[in-house]
Amino acid sequence: MSNTARGRQDSAALFVLSAVCLALITIISVWKLKQFKYRLINEAGGAMFYGVFLGLAVRYLWVDREEHSENMGSVCSCHGLNSTPHVIMVNISSHGHCYRLIEKKGQRCSQLPSPHTAMLDPQILFDLFLPPIIFFGAYTLNQRRFVGNLGSIVTYAFLGTIISSLCIGTLVYGFTRLMVLLRRAADGEFSLTDCLLFGAIMSATDPVSVLGLLSDLRVDSDLHALLFGESVLNDAVAIVLTHAIASYDQMETGNVFQTPAFFRSVGFFVGVLIGSFLLGFIFTVITALLTKLTRLHESPLLETSIFFLLSWSSFLSAEACGLSGIVAVLFCGLSQAKYTNLNLSHEGSTRTKQLFEVLNFLGEIFIFGYMGYIWFTFRHHAFRALFISGAFLSIFISRACNIYPLSFLINLGRTKKISRNFQHFMVFAGLRGAVSFSLAVRDTSTEARRTILTTTLLLIGFTVWVLGAAADPLLSHLDLREEEETDGNLQDVSSEVDTKRQDTSQSLWYRLDHQYLKPLLTHCGPPLTNSLPQWCGRFAGVFCGHQKQEDEERPFETEPENFDVNLEKSDLPSTRSSDSGSEQREDLLEGDLGLGTGAAHVTEE
Amino acid sequence: MSNTARGRQDSAALFVLSAVCLALITIISVWKLKQFKYRLINEAGGAMFYGVFLGLAVRYLWVDREEHSENMGSVCSCHGLNSTPHVIMVNISSHGHCYRLIEKKGQRCSQLPSPHTAMLDPQILFDLFLPPIIFFGAYTLNQRRFVGNLGSIVTYAFLGTIISSLCIGTLVYGFTRLMVLLRRAADGEFSLTDCLLFGAIMSATDPVSVLGLLSDLRVDSDLHALLFGESVLNDAVAIVLTHAIASYDQMETGNVFQTPAFFRSVGFFVGVLIGSFLLGFIFTVITALLTKLTRLHESPLLETSIFFLLSWSSFLSAEACGLSGIVAVLFCGLSQAKYTNLNLSHEGSTRTKQLFEVLNFLGEIFIFGYMGYIWFTFRHHAFRALFISGAFLSIFISRACNIYPLSFLINLGRTKKISRNFQHFMVFAGLRGAVSFSLAVRDTSTEARRTILTTTLLLIGFTVWVLGAAADPLLSHLDLREEEETDGNLQDVSSEVDTKRQDTSQSLWYRLDHQYLKPLLTHCGPPLTNSLPQWCGRFAGVFCGHQKQEDEERPFETEPENFDVNLEKSDLPSTRSSDSGSEQREDLLEGDLGLGTGAAHVTEE
Repeated sequence: MSNTARGRQDSAALFVLSAVCLALITIISVWKLKQFKYRLINEAGGAMFYGVFLGLAVRYLWVDREEHSENMGSVCSCHGLNSTPHVIMVNISSHGHCYRLIEKKGQRCSQLPSPHTAMLDPQILFDLFLPPIIFFGAYTLNQRRFVGNLGSIVTYAFLGTIISSLCIGTLVYGFTRLMVLLRRAADGEFSLTDCLLFGAIMSATDPVSVLGLLSDLRVDSDLHALLFGESVLNDAVAIVLTHAIASYDQMETGNVFQTPAFFRSVGFFVGVLIGSFLLGFIFTVITALLTKLTRLHESPLLETSIFFLLSWSSFLSAEACGLSGIVAVLFCGLSQAKYTNLNLSHEGSTRTKQLFEVLNFLGEIFIFGYMGYIWFTFRHHAFRALFISGAFLSIFISRACNIYPLSFLINLGRTKKISRNFQHFMVFAGLRGAVSFSLAVRDTSTEARRTILTTTLLLIGFTVWVLGAAADPLLSHLDLREEEETDGNLQDVSSEVDTKRQDTSQSLWYRLDHQYLKPLLTHCGPPLTNSLPQWCGRFAGVFCGHQKQEDEERPFETEPENFDVNLEKSDLPSTRSSDSGSEQREDLLEGDLGLGTGAAHVTEE
Repeated sequence: MSNTARGRQDSAALFVLSAVCLALITIISVWKLKQFKYRLINEAGGAMFYGVFLGLAVRYLWVDREEHSENMGSVCSCHGLNSTPHVIMVNISSHGHCYRLIEKKGQRCSQLPSPHTAMLDPQILFDLFLPPIIFFGAYTLNQRRFVGNLGSIVTYAFLGTIISSLCIGTLVYGFTRLMVLLRRAADGEFSLTDCLLFGAIMSATDPVSVLGLLSDLRVDSDLHALLFGESVLNDAVAIVLTHAIASYDQMETGNVFQTPAFFRSVGFFVGVLIGSFLLGFIFTVITALLTKLTRLHESPLLETSIFFLLSWSSFLSAEACGLSGIVAVLFCGLSQAKYTNLNLSHEGSTRTKQLFEVLNFLGEIFIFGYMGYIWFTFRHHAFRALFISGAFLSIFISRACNIYPLSFLINLGRTKKISRNFQHFMVFAGLRGAVSFSLAVRDTSTEARRTILTTTLLLIGFTVWVLGAAADPLLSHLDLREEEETDGNLQDVSSEVDTKRQDTSQSLWYRLDHQYLKPLLTHCGPPLTNSLPQWCGRFAGVFCGHQKQEDEERPFETEPENFDVNLEKSDLPSTRSSDSGSEQREDLLEGDLGLGTGAAHVTEE
């Protein structure tokens, strides 16, 4: 290896090493602060803080050295390139068969500090660390609370995110018009699509920050489920929405609204969402059948490896199919926790959770560290005071327009209402983070997009540091601390009781889940031979024969373990105490998935 | 993102996806085969087998498509490059501040299939997966057996590897002279340095393959310790030897032997070995002190994360300092198991082991899969029949020249002799694998180096498939199966008893370890205030005050856990049963590290 190459490899190793040191310092200092009951900063905030310092050091100390060493290479100017092509091929004439291939990937790389471009392509970082984080979030979601509040969560996540992004988009568009009036921006510099894109980017509240926030504070467990469930699901909506708007933008309609392009984008939105959901579910089905039909549970190592590989595959497959990997891995995590987890051995299940926990923890630190790092190393920040003020204003207004009206609507159908204080805290706890940043950093080709990136970074820093630190006192002020729950709080768990909304779709989902999916994918529920029509007997037998045989080995009581998937770094005692409910109650509650009428079901039966 | 970029990203995802499928198929099929007691193939062999198929598919199905899509990019010929530079900078004139930087890294990439160059740079694969594999091997080495056989292991690993590489080098050099005589090669095509380099590359027996081989067969546990210990340590020797020879080669001495260059290489060899060892140890000291002095054991997640990050840092730091990362991570693993592991909480220790176990397992599959994959996708294989025959012959002869004479010498000092059958099996079990391949693939710039790569691949395939499959019957034939060991087999454990070799260095190491390192780094051993001279009182107090206070919480009995680090995929009952030995015996045995006279120590005290 030549000296230059060696030197560059060393500097890459040195760079990764400093990232590792950053992670170590973050872990130790945040943990030390927590020991002193100083809860103002969590891992995410700490990592971002140290990331800023690393970025400063790299910008002012390192880059000079790098620039010096770069001059050792041969420079070869390629004239005659008037456009900025995405792929450039360089033909090195002295070496017959050898050509080099360079990719530009939307100009982004060119503006990041060049020496570490290859190592620090944010896409690689996100492809590596976001899937385990999202998967872990979905996998360890307290299923019981989640199911109990599903109707509300889905409303906030889907309807709320769309309201948010429209609200931010129009408000910010208003501010850009003001900028044009005040001659701070050229007309057409910020199109409505740009503003809507910004709205979609900023509408995703971040599960990583929210989880970091909630886990340290003893929050009411319904609030926990609502906030965390919303933040996990709204990522899906925001990601797909962003892609839909970007694809609408690419159709080059100018600033004229075009109905076909709009409907194509809506179609794209729905298609990607459903496609990703199905793909995630397909990987759950494969994993569940593999773990059910083979005796893999004899080797926890194999179980864990296969579980990990298949869950990661859901992400890769979705990306390969042009769908959203994050959305697929999200739904995969939700369904893996519901079905496959029942097939794993106790050790396999623990191992899997612990593996993802470590990946999640390290991934969170690296991603937030990187967000801090990019502050000073990204050379083309575009600070537009009016745009930034508009954005700051709009995220509060949009959050309020999302939470208050929707809570009012949702409360019409809930027995345990979402209280005012609850709503205030929800408005406040809309932290932004990794997903917003990953969406913003994808494309920084125009001035508008660079403004979006800079503003996104500012908003993330503000929400993580300022709102994050203020959450603890606010929670005390609003009196939303967790209280020790008594047992037998079934009514509490399923908060969305509406005795009038007993419709067919509810029983349809219940039947599908209880009579077909569960017996097919796990060892629980009634035998498949009972549920399926007679002519499917042979098919049912394949899955059932094994099931009967296994039933003695793996007793029915393994099921409640599912609901103990409660590694969310929090130690909410309530969620554990309610795990002692009887099997029958569990099953009834699960029938609730879809409309939140489970408890009504209990009452009526 | 443009369609081309999108397409390329998709194809990258598709490629990673097929690698994941390969891993899944390997895991499931090998595991199924094992269920049928069919032990002829292990994970490594299986992964390599499927890797070959993947390579075939990519070569004949995929590449056409890729080549088509590449034509969509702009081609920009850079004339006037007469040399093959290592760094090329392309100045894209239309985009003022934007330049792209390309690195050549020793011509290697140019000959691998271009579309996946970036993803499949073997260096990235090895940097990612080799450290956890080597670390896991060292960390889970049965310390008791290892210490009991340390003298023999070190002799085989250091002296044996040097003998092996010299033997292979000279034999193969003879064959290359024959090639010149028979006009099959040009004079000077293969220099003596090339042949010695090949010797160094091929002298490393592979811990991954050997472990795969041993874990499935119930091998005598002394044989297990000898073979596995040797294969772990000789990697270090082979890696550093290869670099030393390559650096001697770069001094461009021609074919003339030059004493200064030779001694510089010897100095390099010793320096890198000692430097890497020290660096690995420094990271153990940091980890041990962190886990000892802080209350990290309250959170297993933090323990595991910090342990993982610091162990990986040993690799990165060594690479950044120009030392050998693998050697550093190897010694780091050995010392982490000896010291830091004692400070971890039970859950933290289990988690750490399980995390590395999964990484090791997946890494093994990916690396061997890649070795199979490269078969058909590397376009510049150089098949030289005579060179290959010479190499095949030489690896057996060199292994015999290594094992038989050294065993004779070692047996002079052992009470439990290494039997003839034992030696036969050791000669036979010299499987080659990942480390040899990673050394061979680093540089394929000349015809000689390409011949070396092709031959290395052939030899790896042969040893893993043919010797691997023959091991099971041979083991039965030689009657070396593991028998149930009775308890109280202290004499067995420390097999290298030589009552005459009680010298000062032994007691020096014993004192260093028992009186200083252990009390400093862990909560075990006598208090540091006793061992250190009075004027160090303050320093000792820092580490001791905490220690005394902790002593009640973490009783002395935690120490034997250390020896339970026995996750080597095997379930040798013997090694566990002997863990019940008393604390005193453990400590005495540990004093053995260095010369294998521990049991003598027992006898005499």
